[in-house]
Amino acid sequence: MQPITPLSMTFSRFDRYVDRHARNFAERLQALCRMPSVAARGTGMRAMAETVEQMMQRVGIGTRSFRVGAGYPIIYGECGAGTQSYVIYGHYDVQPVGHLSEWSVGPFAATIIDGKLYARGAANSKGDLAARLAAVETYQKTFGKLPVSLRFFIEGEDGMGSPSLYRFAADNPEMLAAQGCIWDEGYKDTKERPVISLGFKGIEFVELRAHGARSDLHSKWGAIVPNPAWRLVQALATITSPKGVITIDGFSSKIAPISEEDAEALKTIELDEAGLKREFRIGGWVRSMKGPALVKEHIFGPTCTICGIQTGHTEAGIKTVLPSMAMARLDFRLVPDLTPDLVLELLREHLDVRGFKDIEIIELGSAPLAKSSANSTVARAVIGSAAEVYGVAPMVYPMDPSSGPVGAVCGASSPSTPVASFGISYAGSNPHGPDENIRVDDFLQSIKLIGRVIHRLGETKTKTSGITKVSGTRDWRATVSRG
Amino acid sequence: MQPITPLSMTFSRFDRYVDRHARNFAERLQALCRMPSVAARGTGMRAMAETVEQMMQRVGIGTRSFRVGAGYPIIYGECGAGTQSYVIYGHYDVQPVGHLSEWSVGPFAATIIDGKLYARGAANSKGDLAARLAAVETYQKTFGKLPVSLRFFIEGEDGMGSPSLYRFAADNPEMLAAQGCIWDEGYKDTKERPVISLGFKGIEFVELRAHGARSDLHSKWGAIVPNPAWRLVQALATITSPKGVITIDGFSSKIAPISEEDAEALKTIELDEAGLKREFRIGGWVRSMKGPALVKEHIFGPTCTICGIQTGHTEAGIKTVLPSMAMARLDFRLVPDLTPDLVLELLREHLDVRGFKDIEIIELGSAPLAKSSANSTVARAVIGSAAEVYGVAPMVYPMDPSSGPVGAVCGASSPSTPVASFGISYAGSNPHGPDENIRVDDFLQSIKLIGRVIHRLGETKTKTSGITKVSGTRDWRATVSRG
Repeated sequence: MQPITPLSMTFSRFDRYVDRHARNFAERLQALCRMPSVAARGTGMRAMAETVEQMMQRVGIGTRSFRVGAGYPIIYGECGAGTQSYVIYGHYDVQPVGHLSEWSVGPFAATIIDGKLYARGAANSKGDLAARLAAVETYQKTFGKLPVSLRFFIEGEDGMGSPSLYRFAADNPEMLAAQGCIWDEGYKDTKERPVISLGFKGIEFVELRAHGARSDLHSKWGAIVPNPAWRLVQALATITSPKGVITIDGFSSKIAPISEEDAEALKTIELDEAGLKREFRIGGWVRSMKGPALVKEHIFGPTCTICGIQTGHTEAGIKTVLPSMAMARLDFRLVPDLTPDLVLELLREHLDVRGFKDIEIIELGSAPLAKSSANSTVARAVIGSAAEVYGVAPMVYPMDPSSGPVGAVCGASSPSTPVASFGISYAGSNPHGPDENIRVDDFLQSIKLIGRVIHRLGETKTKTSGITKVSGTRDWRATVSRG
Repeated sequence: MQPITPLSMTFSRFDRYVDRHARNFAERLQALCRMPSVAARGTGMRAMAETVEQMMQRVGIGTRSFRVGAGYPIIYGECGAGTQSYVIYGHYDVQPVGHLSEWSVGPFAATIIDGKLYARGAANSKGDLAARLAAVETYQKTFGKLPVSLRFFIEGEDGMGSPSLYRFAADNPEMLAAQGCIWDEGYKDTKERPVISLGFKGIEFVELRAHGARSDLHSKWGAIVPNPAWRLVQALATITSPKGVITIDGFSSKIAPISEEDAEALKTIELDEAGLKREFRIGGWVRSMKGPALVKEHIFGPTCTICGIQTGHTEAGIKTVLPSMAMARLDFRLVPDLTPDLVLELLREHLDVRGFKDIEIIELGSAPLAKSSANSTVARAVIGSAAEVYGVAPMVYPMDPSSGPVGAVCGASSPSTPVASFGISYAGSNPHGPDENIRVDDFLQSIKLIGRVIHRLGETKTKTSGITKVSGTRDWRATVSRG
């Protein structure tokens, strides 16, 4: 019998390297966070893409940059060796800043206060990208060559629905075929338990528009000129019930029942209800749910969220106008078996039947859902490593309530690639809101986690069935122009 | 029998003076329009008030400026003589500009193109103020002394609900007591018929707010965290029916039946439905109304207009957030016997009964309605003069569908002062929207109209019953500070 060396002993040199370079790693992350790469605004995207490529090259990752049409480049990188290959997804764009007045610090100052690094994009997800690159460097410095082949796909359109990545994946499935995929969404919950996800809800994001007069009118016309704001409100009110249940005709009946495996997985998941309520400063949950019902709704409940409504005059000062246009943005988060196309079709039919044919629906983005098993190599490596590094059993979500282009990446080849997702955030990271932040210690801990994941993946026996081996870089499709 | 001199002959010198000074009068108006006196923003208000006072002094009007608390000054002016006195209302503030991108020209450039003067405030209502001052000058130059005493009250808070004027009127009713009042709302309709109003609807302007989490959240929480945008939509949807009928409990039953006099007056009013539909670029009216039913609804129908809704992320770019707050601004236009307080009370009760106690209601402004008879001296002078100057019978509205502080001014003394309102706008003036404009010819014609109105008022026998004579300027109340 071979003596078993605990990974913690094996990793003492790795961990010491991380600790010794902690400041340097944090500074590299700050440099990334100081670049205002808001894809939706198109600010600083080129400089950001170049910096990402340079940072990858610096840790020995061979890179190429791909552009699909006029989209932001996808930075591709490969390193390591071996018959097994794993895809690592990331993105270098960030969400819009929102209302500057709601930030305590400059959103691109990357200020560290009390061990927290505040920046738009720190949590979602430049911190994860920086942690993965730091782990590659550390592994090479302490173990030598990586035991597996890693393939990075770092896109710049996460905040825009990833159109380039979808096109790239459809055109180059062989590049994305792998034994597993590591995604970049994950956080410690309010009780400091790491949350690992093995899939993501789908999403359908639409804008509804109602139109009235050619321009905003004096509201004295309110008695006789149709008001598109009322029209929109009346249409919206048919989409959910006052209790927050989606009431689109035929919607609920399309939802698949929860599988036994998922039902079992749900039993192990706990939401820190009191902690989250404090964090969000809310008095209760939708429909006063709690316990297992709340967990089930969070993970397997479909959503229809009003993300924004704008009509008329809403700035400071009184202005009595009859608006000419009203718009609402809705995002639907999709569970099995809801697809973006199906939801769009049901919504259109639902509005038409109720006489709201005049309400325009514009699709702003979509992504199919993705789900994989807890028994995959990558899931086991991540779950096992997390338990060791964090010292607590992670919360394993069969499907994360968020969404992303995971279906494009993991569904490019058949059978689809299993995925495990984890990240550096914590419950107070507020990734889409003001004062987005991460804790520097979480960032450093995540580097240690990634090192162990790489190591565990290398210890796994090669499985090649169903996997298309990538044959170098000569097969890039002509449709993809190199940036 | 005295020979009857038609007013047109009497006025030939007056009209020639206006024609000779047309360019100069237009330039004075342009100067006023180039001052960006947006009360809601507080821009340029002091300079505007000073300029108004100077322009009044220039035509021989003795002025004083009154400030109530920290409000914008009310410019008071007196001129003329005689036992009869008339109040002339005006305002020097303008509406906010709105979206600059929707303007064809700079909103404060006061550019004249094809005989139209484009500027925020040109129609509402610097043009009316300039026309009234030009008429005073012309009358004095051609007839000599004014045959009646005119008392100007030019406020700077029309766009803010006129708080100073309300306070001033309540504290100084004797200053506002008069034989009649001339208001500044009025226009030529799409068929070039002048519209004269003998009253105004009341208004109750409120903001509704629904609150959710402490800040906007990632919308992945949409299945379990209450969304204030949905809450607001569901609450709003109970306030009107999909057909645009106000469904607030007890609202309709409080509305007084239309009097016989008003019903008769309605028969003489015609809306140029086809012309207005073209102008507004709409396919039809609320509930497909037309003809007398449409006129009746326009003038005697109460309204509840959504003037604005804002929640979440509504700028360019995709951002999937669960909003922390949602707000809607509603204006109710009030007909007999609806009062601002009553509407506020009914709305609160209506929401409470339906479980929407959490929806906050903030009152942003209000004004009671005002209505007077077509037989008053001032109404007869205005109607008769308009018929002469414009060569067509004016449309006489028993109550204008717009609102203003007319109740404060005309209701200050008892019995209330009769009012007649007319102005220089036309159907395409778009007074609260982009490209607000007037036709310079309308402006000049209005000067001629005002001259005749002054003349006719001077020919009317003195009636003093119920009127408190103003005893100089020594009685100003101490609560009003002089600015």
